[in-house]
Amino acid sequence: MTVVVTNTPRTPLALVDEFAGLGVATIHEAQGRTGLLHHRLRPIYRPIHVSGTALTCEVAPGDNWSIHVAAEQARPGDVLVVTPTSPCDDGYFGELLATSLRARGVRGLVIDAGVRDVAELTAMGFPVWSKAISAQGTVKETPGNVQTPIVVAGQRVEPGDVIVADGDGVVVVARARAEEVLAASRAREQNEAAKRARLAAGELGLDLYAMRERLAERGLTYREHDGA
Amino acid sequence: MTVVVTNTPRTPLALVDEFAGLGVATIHEAQGRTGLLHHRLRPIYRPIHVSGTALTCEVAPGDNWSIHVAAEQARPGDVLVVTPTSPCDDGYFGELLATSLRARGVRGLVIDAGVRDVAELTAMGFPVWSKAISAQGTVKETPGNVQTPIVVAGQRVEPGDVIVADGDGVVVVARARAEEVLAASRAREQNEAAKRARLAAGELGLDLYAMRERLAERGLTYREHDGA
Amino acid sequence: MTVVVTNTPRTPLALVDEFAGLGVATIHEAQGRTGLLHHRLRPIYRPIHVSGTALTCEVAPGDNWSIHVAAEQARPGDVLVVTPTSPCDDGYFGELLATSLRARGVRGLVIDAGVRDVAELTAMGFPVWSKAISAQGTVKETPGNVQTPIVVAGQRVEPGDVIVADGDGVVVVARARAEEVLAASRAREQNEAAKRARLAAGELGLDLYAMRERLAERGLTYREHDGA
Amino acid sequence: MTVVVTNTPRTPLALVDEFAGLGVATIHEAQGRTGLLHHRLRPIYRPIHVSGTALTCEVAPGDNWSIHVAAEQARPGDVLVVTPTSPCDDGYFGELLATSLRARGVRGLVIDAGVRDVAELTAMGFPVWSKAISAQGTVKETPGNVQTPIVVAGQRVEPGDVIVADGDGVVVVARARAEEVLAASRAREQNEAAKRARLAAGELGLDLYAMRERLAERGLTYREHDGA
Amino acid sequence: MTVVVTNTPRTPLALVDEFAGLGVATIHEAQGRTGLLHHRLRPIYRPIHVSGTALTCEVAPGDNWSIHVAAEQARPGDVLVVTPTSPCDDGYFGELLATSLRARGVRGLVIDAGVRDVAELTAMGFPVWSKAISAQGTVKETPGNVQTPIVVAGQRVEPGDVIVADGDGVVVVARARAEEVLAASRAREQNEAAKRARLAAGELGLDLYAMRERLAERGLTYREHDGA
Amino acid sequence: MTVVVTNTPRTPLALVDEFAGLGVATIHEAQGRTGLLHHRLRPIYRPIHVSGTALTCEVAPGDNWSIHVAAEQARPGDVLVVTPTSPCDDGYFGELLATSLRARGVRGLVIDAGVRDVAELTAMGFPVWSKAISAQGTVKETPGNVQTPIVVAGQRVEPGDVIVADGDGVVVVARARAEEVLAASRAREQNEAAKRARLAAGELGLDLYAMRERLAERGLTYREHDGA
Repeated sequence: MTVVVTNTPRTPLALVDEFAGLGVATIHEAQGRTGLLHHRLRPIYRPIHVSGTALTCEVAPGDNWSIHVAAEQARPGDVLVVTPTSPCDDGYFGELLATSLRARGVRGLVIDAGVRDVAELTAMGFPVWSKAISAQGTVKETPGNVQTPIVVAGQRVEPGDVIVADGDGVVVVARARAEEVLAASRAREQNEAAKRARLAAGELGLDLYAMRERLAERGLTYREHDGA
Repeated sequence: MTVVVTNTPRTPLALVDEFAGLGVATIHEAQGRTGLLHHRLRPIYRPIHVSGTALTCEVAPGDNWSIHVAAEQARPGDVLVVTPTSPCDDGYFGELLATSLRARGVRGLVIDAGVRDVAELTAMGFPVWSKAISAQGTVKETPGNVQTPIVVAGQRVEPGDVIVADGDGVVVVARARAEEVLAASRAREQNEAAKRARLAAGELGLDLYAMRERLAERGLTYREHDGA
Repeated sequence: MTVVVTNTPRTPLALVDEFAGLGVATIHEAQGRTGLLHHRLRPIYRPIHVSGTALTCEVAPGDNWSIHVAAEQARPGDVLVVTPTSPCDDGYFGELLATSLRARGVRGLVIDAGVRDVAELTAMGFPVWSKAISAQGTVKETPGNVQTPIVVAGQRVEPGDVIVADGDGVVVVARARAEEVLAASRAREQNEAAKRARLAAGELGLDLYAMRERLAERGLTYREHDGA
Repeated sequence: MTVVVTNTPRTPLALVDEFAGLGVATIHEAQGRTGLLHHRLRPIYRPIHVSGTALTCEVAPGDNWSIHVAAEQARPGDVLVVTPTSPCDDGYFGELLATSLRARGVRGLVIDAGVRDVAELTAMGFPVWSKAISAQGTVKETPGNVQTPIVVAGQRVEPGDVIVADGDGVVVVARARAEEVLAASRAREQNEAAKRARLAAGELGLDLYAMRERLAERGLTYREHDGA
Repeated sequence: MTVVVTNTPRTPLALVDEFAGLGVATIHEAQGRTGLLHHRLRPIYRPIHVSGTALTCEVAPGDNWSIHVAAEQARPGDVLVVTPTSPCDDGYFGELLATSLRARGVRGLVIDAGVRDVAELTAMGFPVWSKAISAQGTVKETPGNVQTPIVVAGQRVEPGDVIVADGDGVVVVARARAEEVLAASRAREQNEAAKRARLAAGELGLDLYAMRERLAERGLTYREHDGA
Repeated sequence: MTVVVTNTPRTPLALVDEFAGLGVATIHEAQGRTGLLHHRLRPIYRPIHVSGTALTCEVAPGDNWSIHVAAEQARPGDVLVVTPTSPCDDGYFGELLATSLRARGVRGLVIDAGVRDVAELTAMGFPVWSKAISAQGTVKETPGNVQTPIVVAGQRVEPGDVIVADGDGVVVVARARAEEVLAASRAREQNEAAKRARLAAGELGLDLYAMRERLAERGLTYREHDGA
């Protein structure tokens, strides 16, 4: 019943690496406000940024066995994405696993559960987004699926999808849409650069975005303070 | 029904700036332990400190339209204070709005909801206290009141009140009481400096505050350990 | 009914100081995964580490009186451990108390409630693990027990037990077991150092820990991706 | 510094009693979606409904002294509204206080903290909305203000305002607006009765509210399932 | 960008109705412990049970417009399943919508957000599982997708899947697996009936499940109490 | 390392049964406000009451194996008390286990985790206090200690202690103190009956408890409303 799917296709790394300079908020917007994982996933240090291909892994509560199984499936450029089969805050992941994964080319970890050894992970510069920090260890009794589609922190992630994460959170981009979303993200970024300059010069968003008429239609009225 | 009140009175900036060296805990104590916003509002970086006049703004859930409206009402020295009409963790505010507000002289943001672009906001040194960090964007469909009295994180804030925020949280000082609270805060600070020196020298709070008799009245007893 | 127990025995400081180089996760594992306080206790800054002997203190909700009582019982090498008699997030502890405790040789604070003056505590390098940060002050009306056994964040702590805390959380080691746990922690650390080197060289945990056979017994199967 | 304000004006009871048949959601809508207390306040039993005039009371954390003070200020038709000066889940209120308040004509309790004796309160039919249920008792050391304006669960409540609460939550109607809001609530109720009949007969909201054109403008499109 | 998919296939109602006598825990087990929605979704009354076909609907935060759109797509036997595009506790759904949906044959509601009019919904016997109860109303400004695959409370739900919900929570059964899961659920139920009789007669699970040997292998030991 | 302690002493059942008519709040007060479990433990139905002797059990996260082990140790009059070694909301316990435990004379369950089959447990009248309700099942891979001292929901419980639970929560009374606490609880109850009659007759707590002088000392002042 528990399965490891091998040789799953991945978004080409050359394409994934183009996401390196882009923020999660920008990408999320560029793909129509989809794909954002729940903000309970927080980075363990800042500043922080990663982009890579999803290496997916399910774990039983309090059991990190399948992370070891996943390590063998890793390819350079992967980001490990872990979801528990029921909610759990234990420390599934620490320095030893990070050392192993880094040796296999894994770039970071996204986990809807807890991690530990955060001092060592920070010193290593191994980027992690987690729901909790807890020294509570886990057992190795029940393996879970590796490299199957999973739901993590409210989003469906398929093996090989693009994962981008930064100080704002984590977003998934479907493999099939990666090129299109990259282009849209860049367009958005250029558009924002132009707006930023005008706003920095003191122009109001009300004018820049031509909002005044629509606000009036929605019943917004201005009233001088009565001086009391 | 939705209103923007213009030209609301503000605490004089010269007076507001006197709060710059004072901590939130000190001010909160000095005004009789009132005015503290709920501690779910956390700073996005540390160390951090701001003092300014409240520019108030209500927002609908998932809708940041009125922040753009508020920007036009800003005066140098303001701190934007935003409350949602129902609880929401979306990222209402990011780098572009911060750029716009800074250009208008706004000193920081206090929001009982989420923000995004925290890496950029940190790099800018734009101080923010928020309930959440989330890349989730917002729409512009429903404007809210600007510069009316609001309840934010459990406290009533009126436009022009003094807002002071630091690593411990956010406190509001009513405009009418600003002078009195400033004086009381300073007195408290001087008092603490004297106590600090004595405590640092090893004097006990029990003696410094003459607590022993009252503790005995309350039934506190001392018992030698039985050695087991 | 409220009692201060004096001259409670403590784990010898020479022994306690041997824990200085050890992580909370390691110690927690080494003593059979017991003694870990709930991970809602978080450090106020990072990196951070402390080891010391427990100076225990109960406080009423919103009342920090017994912390002053505890200060008199402090001995060099103690870590103050505070639990409220009912859940409370108020700021029980700030710079003045830290100054006083440091003058008495106390090394840090573990509290299942709130603290304030975090900027000052950080500047002092006074390590604190707390459930909340809040400027909300407390009163001095109801004393609580000092140096009695307490339950704090889900663990029983006796006066004089060893407390070790770092970026991962807080663990208590019973006085009677300190020597044994220290030895087991060191053995574990050496064992991990050997594994770390092999994992860093690319060896898989599956092989290092000889997991393959047992995984197969548990029904783990491998399936080539179907290419769709 | 702590004050009891006597003889505060109240909304006339005849007017208050007109709210008896109205739901909280209806009233909240009728007054422009304002005045709703945070939904963390839940009823201790169902079905449940109360309307009355606010008798306001601040309490220190873990201290219910001022509820006794408030009892003396009660008038028939009041609903006691209690807010702690910092968050607390203790059981501030039980059967004895309910017995006392009922003898003074108080109709129910709204409290942003905990209560106890819920079996007895349910048997008495004394309606309570609270944030928690906890047997944890409170002390009587620090009185709080009675019959002053307070912020409770995110809303400002003035003594004598109308409080209506039911299975959906708690709403406050300002004394000055009571008549107007009552009329608007009734109008809304009649309007809903007409709609209910049409919807029960199978008419769609899309038609009843003429939404189709506006949905199309917003880009809503229909697509036949592809049969896969 | 926003789409309504029409004429989506559904699990045959005759098959769905076979689930009527089965509990959520049984079905969840029978399909290999998959498909359970997060337990933050709670029923508004008890006892409660529903089975039906998923009618899926995305809503913007604080905006219930697409529920009206979904009503038109309803077929008898559907259960409406609603997920917000970002977390929100507002009361999206009340008596009028329930009246409309019931008239269209909809059997109940599963929503990862808030509902209101719970007294009326209870009186109607309209079963609802929600994350919150809140009188806070919603607007109609931003439509969302209807009858597309969604992620709700951590699970992927496709239109036409089987939804079963009871006092324990909510489970989704994929359309393609409905027959197989039904058979497995029944087998499980019969198996449990046999076990129940033996356990009721006092037989121990240790013997019934032949656990003693395996427990000993895992190191479980028995020790007589020392009598202290 | 994992142990089952057999033949642990228990509070005599005749004594335990004397607690049957007493409320948790009363007992908690009578033993000096100690022994109350955290109020996150809620009953699955109301009204509800149980008293019995603690049968203690530790469970791994997501693993209920030791509950089966505990069943063998049960004696008539026991209440099963379960604590997870790390926080977990899974459904550890359902109808089959309740059937088994009832056959062994167990009176109820207190668990700092989740349960399932609440409809069946309610129909059986098997009283349960839990942190969560969840259909998520558990595995049987890691046994935990049975009949050893545990910390559950913040309190230390020893095998054979008295457990009393009702609609307000759960309290533990140490075996050695059971007689004394029973006497104090009854005294308290009689005292309250006398007070209840006076309060029901309209006497104020201010007078009954002679609070007026002490309130004045604490600075409470009365001020007539200014009529504005």
